[in-house]
Amino acid sequence: VELVDADALAIAAARLDGKVVRTPLLPSDRLTDEFGVPVLLKAENLQHTGAFKVRGMFNAMLARAASDHPPSGVTTFSAGNAAAATAYAARALGIPATVCMPPGAVEAKVQAVKRYGGEIVFTDDLVGTCHRIADEQNFLALHPFDDPDVIAGQGTVGVELMADCAAPALILVPVGGGGLISGVAAAVRAVQPGRTTKVVGVEPTTANAMTHALAIGEAAAPPTKPVSIADGLAAPFAGPNTLAHVQANVDDVVTVDDLAIRDAWWSLMEATKLLVEPSAVVGLAALRTGVVPVPASGPIVLVISGGNAARTGIASVAAD
Amino acid sequence: VELVDADALAIAAARLDGKVVRTPLLPSDRLTDEFGVPVLLKAENLQHTGAFKVRGMFNAMLARAASDHPPSGVTTFSAGNAAAATAYAARALGIPATVCMPPGAVEAKVQAVKRYGGEIVFTDDLVGTCHRIADEQNFLALHPFDDPDVIAGQGTVGVELMADCAAPALILVPVGGGGLISGVAAAVRAVQPGRTTKVVGVEPTTANAMTHALAIGEAAAPPTKPVSIADGLAAPFAGPNTLAHVQANVDDVVTVDDLAIRDAWWSLMEATKLLVEPSAVVGLAALRTGVVPVPASGPIVLVISGGNAARTGIASVAAD
Repeated sequence: VELVDADALAIAAARLDGKVVRTPLLPSDRLTDEFGVPVLLKAENLQHTGAFKVRGMFNAMLARAASDHPPSGVTTFSAGNAAAATAYAARALGIPATVCMPPGAVEAKVQAVKRYGGEIVFTDDLVGTCHRIADEQNFLALHPFDDPDVIAGQGTVGVELMADCAAPALILVPVGGGGLISGVAAAVRAVQPGRTTKVVGVEPTTANAMTHALAIGEAAAPPTKPVSIADGLAAPFAGPNTLAHVQANVDDVVTVDDLAIRDAWWSLMEATKLLVEPSAVVGLAALRTGVVPVPASGPIVLVISGGNAARTGIASVAAD
Repeated sequence: VELVDADALAIAAARLDGKVVRTPLLPSDRLTDEFGVPVLLKAENLQHTGAFKVRGMFNAMLARAASDHPPSGVTTFSAGNAAAATAYAARALGIPATVCMPPGAVEAKVQAVKRYGGEIVFTDDLVGTCHRIADEQNFLALHPFDDPDVIAGQGTVGVELMADCAAPALILVPVGGGGLISGVAAAVRAVQPGRTTKVVGVEPTTANAMTHALAIGEAAAPPTKPVSIADGLAAPFAGPNTLAHVQANVDDVVTVDDLAIRDAWWSLMEATKLLVEPSAVVGLAALRTGVVPVPASGPIVLVISGGNAARTGIASVAAD
């Protein structure tokens, strides 16, 4: 496996310039008061499609579109955010997208795919169906996280945040399949080979594909099917590419349980005035539960991965 | 009445540099698709204290603190956001704040004042109580909107957005007592004397102090007590300063009813991934109801005034 490097990140940043939102790195006075060090939020819920995913999927599709064999259509599998990102990028490139999603996908994510003209196939066999569609329709099967161009695209989150805050003490990144943290960590190491900034991933206890892959040393699926309130992090497995990036560049991957995620959900929204999905708050849950120690000084950056939350979920946590 | 000019705005911007958040001007692809022209959001819900108010109150208190008679304490009256802003600025300056709020104030706003160490007096006689406190305790009575330094501070919202988007076709601004729109319109006219950008204010139908003042030509209270789901806009009256600024610099002030505000509330949050209070969505309600025509081209800027929403209100609109 070849790791994403500074050149790949620069190419991705140039490709995506003007096509994705350069999201703000927002200070939170409330969270700064709570933890006693500056807390900053990389607000990818404010990204087009409401999640960081559009960076990686768009970068990969632009790369393929510029190749000798540009795709005539695209398919992927996803809890929803990668699906919406794929539909968004496909619309921009003028090609069709058919995406595979689990039957219980969050309605906001289903609507997002439809908004951008994507076709949805609901299936429990996400990977098999995706490959079948690719074969039958001669579409590009784009992996939602385990692809170097996808990782490089997600890495522009890290490129931007390191430009806006030169020396964070700690960056906390939600982990599903690991594309986001692979890209962010690559971007941090590219500008900071001395590793003064810690990059730590956070997974749900019950959707811990990366922790499992790290423990056994290979990207095999965990024995039980991942499920979590953080639906966007319930990837069925990590990939060889993302595992290698995490092994090389990430300081730690920790887990938080669904109760801690739910507790952090409303309070992050209330404190930061950002509408977010549960996957986006695992970093705050990790600080609150103490599974990641608060650094003695220097800013903490929380990567807020997305905002495509179930309306019923928001109603429920707001009513608590 | 002397109008806030470019010099006053520049002084306010310099005073507030580093003390307030330079909030992002965010593109919304969803609202852009809906209206067919670019829609941008000036996200003051992401401001310290969760609302634009800290700009004006902080600027005025910094101006008084630098005078020959710096205040030993400060009081104001407010539905909550100006109160929290006053408490925040007073804490920064090391002086006490006692604020007057209506008995039914939104709990999030009450908590915000307490978080920053402010004392609250709940009263229906907001102005009288404020003046009594000022007399008894020898505190500065700071008007929450009808003060040139407050207007200049709020004007930094306009200074920033005109720096980030040179030629909006239309800027929609929520109107309570009129401090925000007075400052924003002054900033627009300072850089654009040719008035190519329209600045339009939006009030609740049932809390229309500025519309009333414009109609009778003086800053007298409307005959009925203002009340609205947009609690932050229920100012009891406009002021001579804000009326004069609106007469001089604002193109129109329109009204939207509470049903239209409530309809716009969840959908703005869902589309933009910002947690906002009802006062912040009146601009979107004005476009949706057609009371403000969508310009043929050029960006629309919605000033998102704040995010201190009642938790029960969010639960209610999310559950609809």
